[in-house]
Amino acid sequence: MRAYRLLDWLTDPVLTELDTPEPGPGQVLVRIGGAGVCHSDLHVIREFPPGQMPWSVPFTLGHENAGWVEALGSGVRGLEPGQPVAVYGPWGCGECDYCLRGVETYCERPDRAPVPRGGGGLGLDGGMADFLLVPHARQVVPLPDGLDPVTAAPLTDAGLTPYHAVRRSWPKLTPSATAVVIGIGGLGHLAVQIVKATTAARVIAVDTRHEALELARTLGADTVVTPGDNAAELVRDATRGRGADVVIDCVGTDATLAFAAATSRVLGDLTIVGLGGGTLPVSFFGLPFEMSVQTTYWGSRPELVEVLDLAARGRLHTEVTRFDLADVAEAYRRLEEGTLTGRAVVTP
Amino acid sequence: MRAYRLLDWLTDPVLTELDTPEPGPGQVLVRIGGAGVCHSDLHVIREFPPGQMPWSVPFTLGHENAGWVEALGSGVRGLEPGQPVAVYGPWGCGECDYCLRGVETYCERPDRAPVPRGGGGLGLDGGMADFLLVPHARQVVPLPDGLDPVTAAPLTDAGLTPYHAVRRSWPKLTPSATAVVIGIGGLGHLAVQIVKATTAARVIAVDTRHEALELARTLGADTVVTPGDNAAELVRDATRGRGADVVIDCVGTDATLAFAAATSRVLGDLTIVGLGGGTLPVSFFGLPFEMSVQTTYWGSRPELVEVLDLAARGRLHTEVTRFDLADVAEAYRRLEEGTLTGRAVVTP
Amino acid sequence: MRAYRLLDWLTDPVLTELDTPEPGPGQVLVRIGGAGVCHSDLHVIREFPPGQMPWSVPFTLGHENAGWVEALGSGVRGLEPGQPVAVYGPWGCGECDYCLRGVETYCERPDRAPVPRGGGGLGLDGGMADFLLVPHARQVVPLPDGLDPVTAAPLTDAGLTPYHAVRRSWPKLTPSATAVVIGIGGLGHLAVQIVKATTAARVIAVDTRHEALELARTLGADTVVTPGDNAAELVRDATRGRGADVVIDCVGTDATLAFAAATSRVLGDLTIVGLGGGTLPVSFFGLPFEMSVQTTYWGSRPELVEVLDLAARGRLHTEVTRFDLADVAEAYRRLEEGTLTGRAVVTP
Amino acid sequence: MRAYRLLDWLTDPVLTELDTPEPGPGQVLVRIGGAGVCHSDLHVIREFPPGQMPWSVPFTLGHENAGWVEALGSGVRGLEPGQPVAVYGPWGCGECDYCLRGVETYCERPDRAPVPRGGGGLGLDGGMADFLLVPHARQVVPLPDGLDPVTAAPLTDAGLTPYHAVRRSWPKLTPSATAVVIGIGGLGHLAVQIVKATTAARVIAVDTRHEALELARTLGADTVVTPGDNAAELVRDATRGRGADVVIDCVGTDATLAFAAATSRVLGDLTIVGLGGGTLPVSFFGLPFEMSVQTTYWGSRPELVEVLDLAARGRLHTEVTRFDLADVAEAYRRLEEGTLTGRAVVTP
Repeated sequence: MRAYRLLDWLTDPVLTELDTPEPGPGQVLVRIGGAGVCHSDLHVIREFPPGQMPWSVPFTLGHENAGWVEALGSGVRGLEPGQPVAVYGPWGCGECDYCLRGVETYCERPDRAPVPRGGGGLGLDGGMADFLLVPHARQVVPLPDGLDPVTAAPLTDAGLTPYHAVRRSWPKLTPSATAVVIGIGGLGHLAVQIVKATTAARVIAVDTRHEALELARTLGADTVVTPGDNAAELVRDATRGRGADVVIDCVGTDATLAFAAATSRVLGDLTIVGLGGGTLPVSFFGLPFEMSVQTTYWGSRPELVEVLDLAARGRLHTEVTRFDLADVAEAYRRLEEGTLTGRAVVTP
Repeated sequence: MRAYRLLDWLTDPVLTELDTPEPGPGQVLVRIGGAGVCHSDLHVIREFPPGQMPWSVPFTLGHENAGWVEALGSGVRGLEPGQPVAVYGPWGCGECDYCLRGVETYCERPDRAPVPRGGGGLGLDGGMADFLLVPHARQVVPLPDGLDPVTAAPLTDAGLTPYHAVRRSWPKLTPSATAVVIGIGGLGHLAVQIVKATTAARVIAVDTRHEALELARTLGADTVVTPGDNAAELVRDATRGRGADVVIDCVGTDATLAFAAATSRVLGDLTIVGLGGGTLPVSFFGLPFEMSVQTTYWGSRPELVEVLDLAARGRLHTEVTRFDLADVAEAYRRLEEGTLTGRAVVTP
Repeated sequence: MRAYRLLDWLTDPVLTELDTPEPGPGQVLVRIGGAGVCHSDLHVIREFPPGQMPWSVPFTLGHENAGWVEALGSGVRGLEPGQPVAVYGPWGCGECDYCLRGVETYCERPDRAPVPRGGGGLGLDGGMADFLLVPHARQVVPLPDGLDPVTAAPLTDAGLTPYHAVRRSWPKLTPSATAVVIGIGGLGHLAVQIVKATTAARVIAVDTRHEALELARTLGADTVVTPGDNAAELVRDATRGRGADVVIDCVGTDATLAFAAATSRVLGDLTIVGLGGGTLPVSFFGLPFEMSVQTTYWGSRPELVEVLDLAARGRLHTEVTRFDLADVAEAYRRLEEGTLTGRAVVTP
Repeated sequence: MRAYRLLDWLTDPVLTELDTPEPGPGQVLVRIGGAGVCHSDLHVIREFPPGQMPWSVPFTLGHENAGWVEALGSGVRGLEPGQPVAVYGPWGCGECDYCLRGVETYCERPDRAPVPRGGGGLGLDGGMADFLLVPHARQVVPLPDGLDPVTAAPLTDAGLTPYHAVRRSWPKLTPSATAVVIGIGGLGHLAVQIVKATTAARVIAVDTRHEALELARTLGADTVVTPGDNAAELVRDATRGRGADVVIDCVGTDATLAFAAATSRVLGDLTIVGLGGGTLPVSFFGLPFEMSVQTTYWGSRPELVEVLDLAARGRLHTEVTRFDLADVAEAYRRLEEGTLTGRAVVTP
């Protein structure tokens, strides 16, 4: 089969031929319908020197995957060949207390996982190939009616990550509350929809790009704000002087984090989603009282089921640009350039 | 001023003249913009013999009230004459631990309340009059922009009651969950909207009347079901065999409660909202495991703020038929007949 | 190996010889250190006619099990031969959304479980034998330091069940709250300790037997009450007139359920743990407002981990009477007679 | 009456004579039984230049107060002269959504409060006097049986503040969890007790002083750790490698916050209680994933009720050194020196 692989650290990946894997006991072979092109792959390709991650090259890229069951290893039940499925991406040990609750992101025995702190496309062969070998059937989630693999693929990461972030703040997102979403890109435009679909809170979208704010409006944002001198004031005005109950920062630079702190309400939540490399200095008098600051990382398997249900019922739209497996390098190039519309999905 | 009053138990109320009250310290006089006509008034008028309730006749009816601040008693701040307001209906002692959290429904010192277990229109003079005296400024809630008193009045009870019921079940109303609303009348049609606005759960509406189900569809119900031989099966089918995560029973007869139990999922919630007089026999093997059964009564002041915000933003529509204060008897008559469209609101 | 087996429905079990099982892929063979003697076994032995349960005879009894890892099937990691372990008793399919979160009690595909709605000792071979074959390694929970298998065995059911019940009520069990525990037997005496260890709520213990109340006092109950004419009044007095925030009914007869309803506070929780066969008629005006009534069934795997940690740290004491495997019939006889002290544990 | 007053900013307070105030409508005059000597007073006395706070001098110090009702203003019910009471210290407007839920710490209309962002002893006359005028009866909390004003006074702040901090983390404080309390001083020694009394979590106490760690052990800490080279490692060891589920930092310097971050588990809570002036730089890869960092400020009125109940039942011990009102300067001097044992309470 074809596979788009990172052969060595700090080199360009190449499309190459590979033997189609066969599923061992408990494993599932998935024929890929869609593999999302994610910004974090660029970090993996461009910035990881040998030894930084506990992973070995070569491996196939692609950690946002969906498709159809191709073959089942021995002992796997509850799945049928041909059935459309999404792949839960963080692959843990399956034995620790977190994995046994479906929270493989925080596996406590990464030394026993298929690869430490990774998954398919992150240290192990991923989905930018004709087929993907999933190490355990629990990581394969049947697609609900009305959802196809191409649409589902980016939801496994770009949808699941903001969903997990928004979900922690549900209790604060009452009909009187306001959520600020910073950065209306791949994750942010889904964050806007997730807040609107799962709560009755107001949404204020923040972005420097006019077209991103237009998109946010289309997706239901109540107010849009361009960062600048009076941006924090605009948020205060839109919240009757209170500030935001919840801020989802999908950018994560010093500037956006400072903006988040400046617009937050006492008792608010700030969740850092974006990998912008910023730092927020937290001190007793430096932030609104009891404002909770935390990062977030991907999501749990039960949450992926919920994200897929949300999308299957039409409440979560991802704009997708399809690329053939032969053109995946082009997809990454355009992602890097910023000339992609929506999420690029490779469709072998 | 004019007032529609119950002069004696088990008699028809009459429209009569009364001195306009003057607000004492801490009190607020509200000029009534709307007073909702509620089914429970019929119980008060027709079925309460002397001595059943710890209330004295005469009193003015009307416990769903909104209007404008007319005059402020000494010491009241934060309100301005002319300001549009809703009236929080359950009037407690203001001193017990529940009242001090805004939960006057469960006042623990009803002997110290203005009237035990009641409020304006329930044992004390209510809002079917030109003016309403509210005993404490905390029971007056400013209307958010975009909401007028006629629309707001029924929300203080017919909106607040199902909101409180749905809110307790928010943690179970994930995007994968289903809520069944039984009885699409005054409260039920708001319950449907509240679930849709505040969660991403599916809604199944249940009613015997075709037009009620049509209304439910218009308001966002995903599925509608007519009670009957296979109704429980239809709910199972619509939930992939699981049953309902949450049932809001706005009828409350033996039959609807039995239906609720038959369609519920393990770990589900059944909230009994309707005063249909039914009983559900609860036993270890008689219900799905860990299905939580409870009643609900009105709501808290903080919740009323949320309900009003929800409506001000267009997420909660009440169909209203207006009646002049002179015609309130006619409104009750049509309520009793079942020939009202939406909620009757008296507009003095 | 020896095994105490139900050879046919409605017959007395017998101690017999059986081949020691060998663990298949993913399975674990446990050498039994303790197998608890549970009241529900008497129902299984005495009251289940053929066809009532979707189970086949013969099978070995014993569903409260702990011991040491004897042998591991292929593919099992994270466990070592000789390691002391407890067995999580409810054995589900392992593939549905509940099982994948460790909640095998509510397995949604019982047709795919090793036995529908059962486990070892309940339709499948259990732990009243020298060895127990556990169908999946996830159902084997390592014992924390300080806990031996004889003590741990009854905790897997008699400890886990009340723990699960109390845990759902944690948010209501503030330092100002009161929990009533009805029935200070095998489960109830653990419920008292669990409330005391995990919250700062007051505990009122209710039992007809003087010595049970003495035990409750020893275990930390703040007040003890004998059912009778003024018992509900005593609970009101001990709670400053408020009633119980939480009632854990470990008996479950009509009388105890009525007592629970009579002593509960508005917004309280009543959890029905005991299989006394009673029914509580729930109606709008028949119970305190918003009192939540629900049953409970066993518990989840993550909760079992917590129960074991609680016991390992000395916060949960089970009085145990040991019986040799040869004397298990005697243990059941004394359980039936009511002459057992504490929990009988069979130690092969 | 006598009163210990700050006559001007940056001057030493003096004991002087003042007219005994008379309670106006809704107000309560409290005869002081105890007024706690708090470290934050030293900031007010020594470090606040004129204009820093929106407060006017002179005012009487003392913001941790309890005593007996001396006189009631008109309209106050539910309190009796002579009744022992504690004073809820943060005095808000009483009209905003937070105040109406008993959360006066986060009053949204401080311009309408008796003093902005303060209370008795903080910008208004406090309790280091024979009598204290409390502006609203809701701020007076009856003492439960078994609690005297001298013991209760410090609980209104030094008890309430850590209680509020611990309470937010209850859901994470399971029997398998570990809480680290940094700084076993006035607040920290109560934090240890609060975790032990209200949860079954392990407690690790951290302090540089041997005697503080001895005290922590006496109060129930499971492990004590002295900061130093291997301190974080000791915490890891004591938590089976996991780290702390919850860190309550009662010191709040750069060093303690860094230690907190280094010892925390993924999904943990860090609550900054101490005013040590430190800063924690929060960035995506700098902290364990989903570790929630927040400050905390005092507590709510409902929480004060719970703290007092906890203490009345003997679960919360404050070591108290009594000082006469004539000796309050001595108390502050010894507080500053660090030669006080426990909390100094002024008893007029």
